[in-house]
Parts: sequence; structure tokens; C-alpha cells
Amino acid sequence: MAVGLGPLPVLHPVPGFELGIASAGIKRPGRKDIVLMRCAEGSTVTGVFTLNAFCAAPVILAKKRVLGSPRYLLTNTGNANAGTGEPGLAAAERTCARLAELAGVEQVQVLPFSTGVIGEPLPVEKIEAALPAALADLNENNWAAAASGIMTTDTLPKGASRQFQHEGVTVTVTGISKGAGMIKPNMATMLGYIATDAKVSQGVLQDLLRDAANKSFNRITIDGDTSTNDCCMLIATGQSSLPEITQASGTLFTALKQAVMEVSMELAQAIVRDGEGATKFVTVQVNGGATHQECLDVGYAVAHSPLIKTALFASDPNWGRILAAVGRAGVSQLDVSLIDVYLGDVCIASRGGRSPSYTEEQGSAVMAQAEIQIRIELGRGTASETIWTTDLSHEYVKINAEYRT
Amino acid sequence: MAVGLGPLPVLHPVPGFELGIASAGIKRPGRKDIVLMRCAEGSTVTGVFTLNAFCAAPVILAKKRVLGSPRYLLTNTGNANAGTGEPGLAAAERTCARLAELAGVEQVQVLPFSTGVIGEPLPVEKIEAALPAALADLNENNWAAAASGIMTTDTLPKGASRQFQHEGVTVTVTGISKGAGMIKPNMATMLGYIATDAKVSQGVLQDLLRDAANKSFNRITIDGDTSTNDCCMLIATGQSSLPEITQASGTLFTALKQAVMEVSMELAQAIVRDGEGATKFVTVQVNGGATHQECLDVGYAVAHSPLIKTALFASDPNWGRILAAVGRAGVSQLDVSLIDVYLGDVCIASRGGRSPSYTEEQGSAVMAQAEIQIRIELGRGTASETIWTTDLSHEYVKINAEYRT
Repeated sequence: MAVGLGPLPVLHPVPGFELGIASAGIKRPGRKDIVLMRCAEGSTVTGVFTLNAFCAAPVILAKKRVLGSPRYLLTNTGNANAGTGEPGLAAAERTCARLAELAGVEQVQVLPFSTGVIGEPLPVEKIEAALPAALADLNENNWAAAASGIMTTDTLPKGASRQFQHEGVTVTVTGISKGAGMIKPNMATMLGYIATDAKVSQGVLQDLLRDAANKSFNRITIDGDTSTNDCCMLIATGQSSLPEITQASGTLFTALKQAVMEVSMELAQAIVRDGEGATKFVTVQVNGGATHQECLDVGYAVAHSPLIKTALFASDPNWGRILAAVGRAGVSQLDVSLIDVYLGDVCIASRGGRSPSYTEEQGSAVMAQAEIQIRIELGRGTASETIWTTDLSHEYVKINAEYRT
Repeated sequence: MAVGLGPLPVLHPVPGFELGIASAGIKRPGRKDIVLMRCAEGSTVTGVFTLNAFCAAPVILAKKRVLGSPRYLLTNTGNANAGTGEPGLAAAERTCARLAELAGVEQVQVLPFSTGVIGEPLPVEKIEAALPAALADLNENNWAAAASGIMTTDTLPKGASRQFQHEGVTVTVTGISKGAGMIKPNMATMLGYIATDAKVSQGVLQDLLRDAANKSFNRITIDGDTSTNDCCMLIATGQSSLPEITQASGTLFTALKQAVMEVSMELAQAIVRDGEGATKFVTVQVNGGATHQECLDVGYAVAHSPLIKTALFASDPNWGRILAAVGRAGVSQLDVSLIDVYLGDVCIASRGGRSPSYTEEQGSAVMAQAEIQIRIELGRGTASETIWTTDLSHEYVKINAEYRT
């Protein structure tokens, strides 16, 4: 049911970044469930991780080790190694240690990532047995296979790629992601990996990833639940012949930032488009806020409202539900007489009530589309925020309630 | 589909409080859609109202007028008079003015309440035409008819009643409520009316209602959406021969508070039991918090999680989803190693992972029940909070998405 999501675009290889896929048979024999990534020596590696206090064992390890000199990212699907306590941590360490041994690096240079069933022991032996094949498969041209390899119940693989020229040198930014999938008994996990051959200092790369994630991965919501396993990694291999970027300024930095932003946004939106049971791709834009936070409060109140989400599913221009969500968002001293609400280009509400010019036909025409924008003008200031989400369909309930039957 | 909600209990009349029901034919000819309540002269009247900034016209008027000397509460169903701007305010004023004229009181002594379709003009003439019949019907024995009269798409009427003795005198507390119903294009509205024949000063009565509402009506959630029309009223007619309660202390106050609390709780829980599409009645209890706020944050994160609500619908003991919701509730410095989670009496998680003693069979047995308690022990302090909610079913999506078909 993915909304407006087509086949993978061309994913340009990133010099110094190789990917290898193998099968450990964690859930099913023969399934490609191991994705290994190798960063060239001297790469800069950064990550952003779930804020969930119950974060999974691999997240605890990856967060700690990203500050060292990572060389390998080891991802398995089929088992999230979450809610597994101390034994889960030991299991993640064992797989990393085995890979380090085979690859001739330090154990702390391997970062683990897991997605899948929670609360079940990680099948360490199966993963260890698949590592030689994953290492043998390492190749710069494996992005598309890796995009499929990290999928759980995603219906389509997700990838994005950009190239730009700087002083005659081509710089590449390529990434893959996986989104909200549900495996018994499980929760949604988002994983993202983006690599570039630019050379970037640790501090600049970390800020760049944080900015990009804040405008993309941190602005999407399917159902408001945050996974225990969410991670997004940004790797700069430094294989390009251009000089190192050590400051967040200059034309090279600006071009790189633009490319990373675009790749992040495309990957994040792909996750929403392939959201569980999604039949609509919804952009909630809040303008005219006194602060960014109040724009986000209003945006999330709208994006998380089950009443609005079911109306979107039904293609019903139920503007009253949107006003009610704006009104309960907790914005202090909200003057409803200043607020305008638009569905697409149609003004549905102004000055606290239905817009005089609005007709049900206009609203229905917008709601019938697969991609819908809800725009809220608060009239309080200059801050803006945009959030992407989906509708709430029968299929969502079915996927999340009935997977046993 | 109401969970554990039977026929109305005996609703004892409250001396000095009369109810009259009539038909204005707002949505359908012949439907009883007007409920009028008359408070004896000298009654103390208090109310708590929706915090939604987009509150409806009747709420704006009732909030203002409750501070005067209200004598009549005029409720209509079938039209919420919300999102109607200035004309809506004028319409509400007109119906109150007409009633005041017929009843021989000041216009500001009439408080309006509306629930039903939003964004459509209030049919003032129809309501005015029904007022004489409503006045003629006023009677202390009309509670049950009024409980049915305020229903929208509630499947059952909701009422509760308590009596207690003080120095040989019987004191009565009786109330009715209506809950989450959906009428095109509409949102859930909660209305509650509780009356007692005790004599209580304004300040004490206001605090009593606030306390009672905070522990009952403000602790229930179906889908996290707050209506534009929510109101709960508490009326003390003072017809009892007992002395006026002017302080929040003493045996009479304590007995009255207990009765008001019990009636509020029964009415609030009845709303959840009759929640849209509800197949489960769920109690979320959070103990051991450092503050009440963090208990509420955790409780609502659990109660609003679509992943948990769909698992409840499926009777699936998906403890990982509960841990994930606790973990993302935004409690600062949450030490997951101190947290225990119980489903009923079964410890499902302890020290950040699955409880060693837990078996899927134990969890499934609890989840198969229609009434389920989720108890979370934070291990940080002594604060506790309890929230009541429902599951998220196919029927919820159907009611809220497909009522046009």
C-alpha cells in the first residue's frame, strides 16, 4: 500500500564504503538477514540514536563505540535483541568480537544493529556462521541488495542518492533506510545508513547529521510510538580528493549539507509512504508560530490525532477535528481568531470557524488525493515546522492486532 | 460493545433539582433532544470546562455565567454549536433569553450546553419551540429520562447515585453523563451533571468538583482527543436541613466528598466502558513516581499508544510495546533497571527486560479478560496515578472513518 513510493532509484557507490549481504537464517532459512558495512580506514562515523530509555542492547553498544574509530557496522534483521537485559548485551558483544577477529580489527571498532522480534535471545551462533559470507560479499556496488537486506515488513526497499561537483570532483551521498515493520511481538524500528566520500571532521559531521535528522527522521510519525532500536548513521569515508571539511561553512560544506539533507528527507519520507496500513501521505505544516516548539506541539497534536487520521483514511474533510486538535495542543494564550487552516490550497477555517468561502466539495476534492497537505497558520510569529505522517486505516489495526491469525 | 456496563442503576431524586425532557426535532422528528434542568433558588452551581482553545459557543457562555446565580441548564443534542463563531454565540444567547422569558428569570441565569454536529448553525427556532414542553416536564424523578436525553451515539445511558446519612438526615448525590459519540462531522463530547441536596458554599463546591473531576473525568482517555464542548457541572441545591458546608473538613464534608467522588468515578468509567469500538476496559496504574506529573506522562504514553491499544484489542500480551511506551514517556533520568510491569497480578517485566518467571500463557490469560489492569512500578518515589482507557479496534476505525457509507 506504499503511497507514491516506486522502485529504488540509482544508488551511486560511495568510494571507501562497502556492503556485504549474507543469510544467517534467523527467522527463515535462506533469508538475507545480515548486512555488513565496511568503512575505509580513516572514515569519520557519527550516529543519532533512539531516546527511548528502554533502548536495545545493540543501541547501547553502538552509542558507546561510535565515539571510537568504527570500521564495521553489523546489522541483523529477525531479532531486535531488545528487552533482553545483560545476556542481550553479552550476545551483541560476542557477534562483534567474532567479526573483529575475522576482519583483523579491534572489537570496539564493530557497531551492532538489530531489528525484529523483541524479547528473544539473539541467535549468536547463526550470526557468527554467516559472517565469513558477509565479509566475502563486501562490495561498493551492493547498496540495493543492502536496502532489501535490512527490510523487515517494509513492502519496498528504500534508498536515495545524490551527487554534486566541487572544483571538478564528484562527491557522492547515498543512503538506505528501513521503517515501521511489525514482527511478532515487536515494535516499529527505523534504521538509516548514509555514506559520503567527502572528508569531514567528527564535530562537523555530527552536527550535520543532527540537523539533517531533526528536519527529516525526527519529523515523521506513523503512530507516535518510538522504537527501542532506532538509529541513523552518517559515515564520511574521506576517499574524495577534496580537502577535509572542518567548519560548517563554505561552498563545499553547503553543497554537502544540501545533499545529506535531501537524502535524509527522501529516506524519511519513504518510511512514511510505506507506513503500516498507509493509504495517504500527509504533510502537516505549521506556520506563524511564536516558537518552533509550539509549531511542533500543534503539528504533532494534528499528526497523532486518531480522529483526524481516520478522517484522512475516509477522505472526509472533517475540519472540526483539525480545529479541535489545534485547540488542545497546549499552546498558551492561543487566539483562535487569528488562525487559518488550509487543506491543500483550500482555506477550510478562518477566525475560529468554518471559512465563509469553504464548500464541502472543495474539501472532498483535496481529501480524495493520496498526498495531502494540512497547513495551519497560527498568526503569532515567524516560526515554522513541517511533519509528515499517514492516515489510520483498517489495515493498521489489522497489521498490529491480527498478525497471529 | 459497552464493556461491563449494565442498565441504569436507581437514580435517587435530588430535592430542589428538576429535569424536563422535550423534543425539538433537531436531527430527527420526535427524538428527545432537549434536556432542561432547574436548580432551586439559592443553589450553588459550579462547573469545569474543556481547555480546548477552540471551545464551543455554549461553553464560552456557560463558563461566564456559572459565576452568577444560575437557575437553568439547557442542553441540546444533535448540534454542538461549535466552530460557529459570533453567530453561534448569538444563537446560544437567543435560546437562553427565550427560556429566561418563559421562566421569569434573568437571561444570565440560563447556562447553555450543546453536543452533536459541529460547524452547522444552531436551529434556534426549533429549540425555542420545544422550551414550553421542557418546562412543563420538569420533575425531580426525571433523571433516567434525562440520561437518555443527553445521549448522542452512546450505546447506553449513564448514571450513578449515592446516598448517605448524617445526623439522621439523608443526603443524595445523583449524576448522569454522556460520552464519546460521533456524529458527522463531529468529535467526541463529554457532558456530566451531578446534583446534591447538600448546602455547600461556592468555594468549597468548586474545589470539590475540581478534585473529583481530576481523579475521574480528567483521567479517562479514549483516543487522546479533547472535545470543544466538554463540561461537567456540580449543583448543590441546599434543600437539605443540614447546615451549610463552608469548609473542606468535618464528617459531613468528608461524606459528601466521598459520594461525589464515587458518582464522578462511576460516570467517568461508564464513558470509557462505552467508548467507541471498545472491547476492553483498561486501567493503567503508575506507582512509585517521583512526581504525579511523571506518573501521568507514563500513564498517558501507555494509554495513548496505538501499538498497545491494538495489542489489547487482539488480547496479545505484547509486553515489549508497554516497555517501549514507558521508555519514551519523557521521564528524565529513568532507570529502567528499577521498573517492574504487571499485567493484572502477573509480573511481565522486571529490571528492564522480560521477567524470568513470566510465561506467554500467564500473559495471555490476563489479556483474554474484558477488564485489564496494567500496573507500572517506577521505583523512583511515592507518587501514584491511575488512568482508564480502552483498546483500539476495527470498530473504532469503522465508526470514525466510515459513517458516511
